[in-house]
Amino acid sequence: MNGTRLLDTIHSPADVKRLDFGQLQELCAEIRAFLIDSVSKTGGHLSSNLGTIELTVALHKVFATPSDKFVWDVGHQCYTHKILTGRREGFDRLRMLGGISGFPSPRESEHDAFIAGHGNTSLSAAIGMAQAKKLRHEPGKVIAVVGDGAFTGGMIYEGMNNIRSLNNLIVVLNDNKMSISKNVGSVAQYLTQLRTSPRYFKAKRDVESLLDSTPVVGGAIKAGIQTVKSAFRRSLYHSTMFEEMGFQYVGPVDGHDVKELSMLFDAYRQEQSAPLFVHVLTIKGKGFTPAEQNPGEFHGVSAFDVNHLTDPDVAPDSSFSTVFGQQLAQLAGQDERICAITAAMKYGTGLQYFYKQHKSRFFDVGMAEQHAVTFAAGLAANGMRPVVSIYSTFLQRGYDQIIHDVNLQRLSVLFAVDRAGLVPGDGETHQGIYDAAFFSELDSFQIVSPCNYAELAYWLERLLLEDGPRALRYPRGAEDEALAALDCSGLEYDVFRAEGPADAALVTYGAQAKEALAAAKLAAQQGVCVDVYKLTVIHPLPQGLCDALGGYRSILFAEEGVRGGGIGEHLAAALLERGCNASYRHIAVPNNGLTHASVDELRARFGLDAASLAAAIMKQGDVK
Amino acid sequence: MNGTRLLDTIHSPADVKRLDFGQLQELCAEIRAFLIDSVSKTGGHLSSNLGTIELTVALHKVFATPSDKFVWDVGHQCYTHKILTGRREGFDRLRMLGGISGFPSPRESEHDAFIAGHGNTSLSAAIGMAQAKKLRHEPGKVIAVVGDGAFTGGMIYEGMNNIRSLNNLIVVLNDNKMSISKNVGSVAQYLTQLRTSPRYFKAKRDVESLLDSTPVVGGAIKAGIQTVKSAFRRSLYHSTMFEEMGFQYVGPVDGHDVKELSMLFDAYRQEQSAPLFVHVLTIKGKGFTPAEQNPGEFHGVSAFDVNHLTDPDVAPDSSFSTVFGQQLAQLAGQDERICAITAAMKYGTGLQYFYKQHKSRFFDVGMAEQHAVTFAAGLAANGMRPVVSIYSTFLQRGYDQIIHDVNLQRLSVLFAVDRAGLVPGDGETHQGIYDAAFFSELDSFQIVSPCNYAELAYWLERLLLEDGPRALRYPRGAEDEALAALDCSGLEYDVFRAEGPADAALVTYGAQAKEALAAAKLAAQQGVCVDVYKLTVIHPLPQGLCDALGGYRSILFAEEGVRGGGIGEHLAAALLERGCNASYRHIAVPNNGLTHASVDELRARFGLDAASLAAAIMKQGDVK
Repeated sequence: MNGTRLLDTIHSPADVKRLDFGQLQELCAEIRAFLIDSVSKTGGHLSSNLGTIELTVALHKVFATPSDKFVWDVGHQCYTHKILTGRREGFDRLRMLGGISGFPSPRESEHDAFIAGHGNTSLSAAIGMAQAKKLRHEPGKVIAVVGDGAFTGGMIYEGMNNIRSLNNLIVVLNDNKMSISKNVGSVAQYLTQLRTSPRYFKAKRDVESLLDSTPVVGGAIKAGIQTVKSAFRRSLYHSTMFEEMGFQYVGPVDGHDVKELSMLFDAYRQEQSAPLFVHVLTIKGKGFTPAEQNPGEFHGVSAFDVNHLTDPDVAPDSSFSTVFGQQLAQLAGQDERICAITAAMKYGTGLQYFYKQHKSRFFDVGMAEQHAVTFAAGLAANGMRPVVSIYSTFLQRGYDQIIHDVNLQRLSVLFAVDRAGLVPGDGETHQGIYDAAFFSELDSFQIVSPCNYAELAYWLERLLLEDGPRALRYPRGAEDEALAALDCSGLEYDVFRAEGPADAALVTYGAQAKEALAAAKLAAQQGVCVDVYKLTVIHPLPQGLCDALGGYRSILFAEEGVRGGGIGEHLAAALLERGCNASYRHIAVPNNGLTHASVDELRARFGLDAASLAAAIMKQGDVK
Repeated sequence: MNGTRLLDTIHSPADVKRLDFGQLQELCAEIRAFLIDSVSKTGGHLSSNLGTIELTVALHKVFATPSDKFVWDVGHQCYTHKILTGRREGFDRLRMLGGISGFPSPRESEHDAFIAGHGNTSLSAAIGMAQAKKLRHEPGKVIAVVGDGAFTGGMIYEGMNNIRSLNNLIVVLNDNKMSISKNVGSVAQYLTQLRTSPRYFKAKRDVESLLDSTPVVGGAIKAGIQTVKSAFRRSLYHSTMFEEMGFQYVGPVDGHDVKELSMLFDAYRQEQSAPLFVHVLTIKGKGFTPAEQNPGEFHGVSAFDVNHLTDPDVAPDSSFSTVFGQQLAQLAGQDERICAITAAMKYGTGLQYFYKQHKSRFFDVGMAEQHAVTFAAGLAANGMRPVVSIYSTFLQRGYDQIIHDVNLQRLSVLFAVDRAGLVPGDGETHQGIYDAAFFSELDSFQIVSPCNYAELAYWLERLLLEDGPRALRYPRGAEDEALAALDCSGLEYDVFRAEGPADAALVTYGAQAKEALAAAKLAAQQGVCVDVYKLTVIHPLPQGLCDALGGYRSILFAEEGVRGGGIGEHLAAALLERGCNASYRHIAVPNNGLTHASVDELRARFGLDAASLAAAIMKQGDVK
């Protein structure tokens, strides 16, 4: 890797301001080398960060955080920002327990103005901050940095409709011609058009002078030309969608020219009359050939060998997502009604297999979870069998549409909820801990939570034959070896009985079954018999479950989800209503105090690991 | 009122097709008179329906439901559609139990293609239906009718990004220059611009011929003009935002000229090359002077006297909304940090008082609940005290933003949740039955549910002094007389003890306390003592509540909200974990089988009325 001569001098943004443009360019090269080296060791988001180095350096050259505020949209593009704000040392433990977060975190630094794990939020947050600055008569700018992928999500338009005359607001469109998957839809086409007409759409000043230099002739023809010119000028003044929305539009600008970027920001730093929209063109993966060629593959990566590259993303044959994707593709070959819908996560959800085989029935709608759900409802209302595959945490965006558009009409939409439960690395913003709670607010909405590939495949096929709204939720990554050994019974729940008669039952579902089964073994080693109930259908509660549990003196429910509204609460209420008087305890995931760590670390933190569960169930038995 | 000579001949859409244009115009007049007369007797949505008569008649003249599909955005504009599809008789019991719904309902008629109580959903649903038609090789068009207000909501843009080349999709923009409140923001300005340039933006064909008729001169000037003309033409071809998104744009068209509308639809009925966007100008309240002058007042009305009009909407001095709005305006006079945010419901939420006194701190963001929440988070992150006032049912749209942008950062945003609990008339799509469940998924998110004005005023002031995320939820309409008589104790919960020692406790919160107190009286008349626990803070559960309830033999929890994840389940789980072995029962609102009715009728239907509660608690005591 390159040296770190300049990088070593950077301890805070003030150090960036001291450098001249030549030095800034050198600094960018050093950061680029540092990022490739560092992320190859720890894993993390590579492509997007290689694309935003010059942009971030230019922003820190001109503006002064924390007085000026940077709001990153989907904050995984903030690595350079973290380096420049004194957190370079932390990259050794990027996304690890106790190390730095892979996303902006106000708790981590005063330079991080706002959290950003979900997409589309930056403009709304920035508008709020800019408005607060105005009301409090505070100086400084608020700068939202938004990828082009975010323009497939509706919230950004809700924000654009509300920029009023916030002259302290700057939106930087980081246009790298794709979001995580290849960008889709009308907006992508529109941006392509803007990109390929650079002169035509450049800053108004240029257009003005161009028009003024057109020769003027006399008489009727002059008047005619004047009319046309005036209309032409008017059309130019409203030539971009962003100008229609009230922005002053500048661009496109080369996002890897740190000098041009710095000068542009500096020109608008002191004053401007309207919210400013800067269209910056960047290359995802810039400067690292494998990433430039396959930015999707290097979006979020595990550790890799810089010199011996294999596909660094999830291996295709060993994940729930892949099993889902391949199985769905196969089922769709037998049933022409099956459609697949994803929200900008074709590869993440394993739907590339479906796409290859059934292109006309595959829909990537962009980062538009709300639309995805209601679009699926429309398909189902007209006789199709849509499967909506979205990560649990992002599906929160479709909450209202699930209630209003799908559930009220009892439409046959199947939700394939990927990354359900605890999620490693990404931290507090990406945990799949709400889906079991929100789906189970809906009385007859069936929710199935398989623990291994065999169960996933079995229930996917079965649920596609049933009518009505359903959800199939499964964890990130590969099945656990111990759970893989379990046969799929096809039952709504399975009981794993202790060797002797048990007074205690440990109830759980999904991947958390691994810890429950291990906990029962630990208890057995201490001479305590614990039966394990592994639910597969988690809502409505399986028939017979409450009766079966009625005989135990103590019941411990463990789930990788929130407590309030979680399955453990539904069971508690059902048991109490039936007059159960067992000792009952519910261990769940708190929604404050989440952090980035491995799933095992998170489980240990929340008392969901085998040792904690064993200790809890034995203590519970003592107390009773 | 006018006669119903033609109207009497209309029993299905086929009868509309038989009429000539002159007769259609007459039919519209008859429908207009019928609607004014009918809605004056039953209450309902008046202004929007008076605006869409000609449009709906023209649609039914040209298209043929149910083969063609109409998808109404916020379906309360569908009265004429209901009249033309055989439901005129039902208007006697509009929005009443057993009568017709005020919204489209596929259960009610095969001509109603999709449900629509929440805004912005029509385009996504229509795209799904159109895509399904294409995949199934079915003929016919899918027509989404969207008000201009919907363009302040993000979901419509998510849909526009995904229209692909659906040549069986037609979007009708019903542009009445306002949504429910006065329309706001950049989109409204943009539409104004389109409206005021009718020639400029008319159908492409016109523009083509205009350009072709421009005189051509010789030599260099000719070339120059050609260049300018070509650029001008190009700019026209991409002149509207809707064209940028891939639509073929036609308009603006007079929405009250049934002949022009019919001819236009007919021209595009058989074939078109791209999704069609028809921009129709209508007048809200058309033909009824008081409604034309004050369409906001006649948006959703109670029964009124056509000849002696008073303000037919909620009386300003007698609603939770008004108490909230006036109190907040007053508090904001003492605390400059307080801001108020609404999503297109300035009058509905009572925020007009705040607006009048603190204009710079008032924000109506349009139908953009997602933005409203994150915008508030941004304000709070920079030191303001935002209060977000949104109806419970619409706040479902902000679920993810509440979790991700507010709760994770523990920002001091106060949610003022209006129309929480059961809601009369509007039916299944408008019930405020989820907010208690979804807020209480968040461990330390404080939720307060006052039962009368005094409690609302007290807790509003108190919560604004506290830090962190909080929700204050209150019902639609006026306080109940019996509940008004209760003093505000300022306690987290109050106990209303029976005359003698009680074995049974009835636990509830909010307006439902009225029924609980009445049930206790009914039980007392039968010689059964029941203590009533009225929770004001409903989450986290008040300290001491479980201990206090520990002594009862039976506990009945009654709530105007869903069972799964409801407060009654949290209490059950907490009680069971503490070893409580009382008989416990939880009566809540099911989310399937909801309908339009009065609140009292809904309570009776769900066993939440005093008589049912009294019977339930007495039966429960017997069983134990």
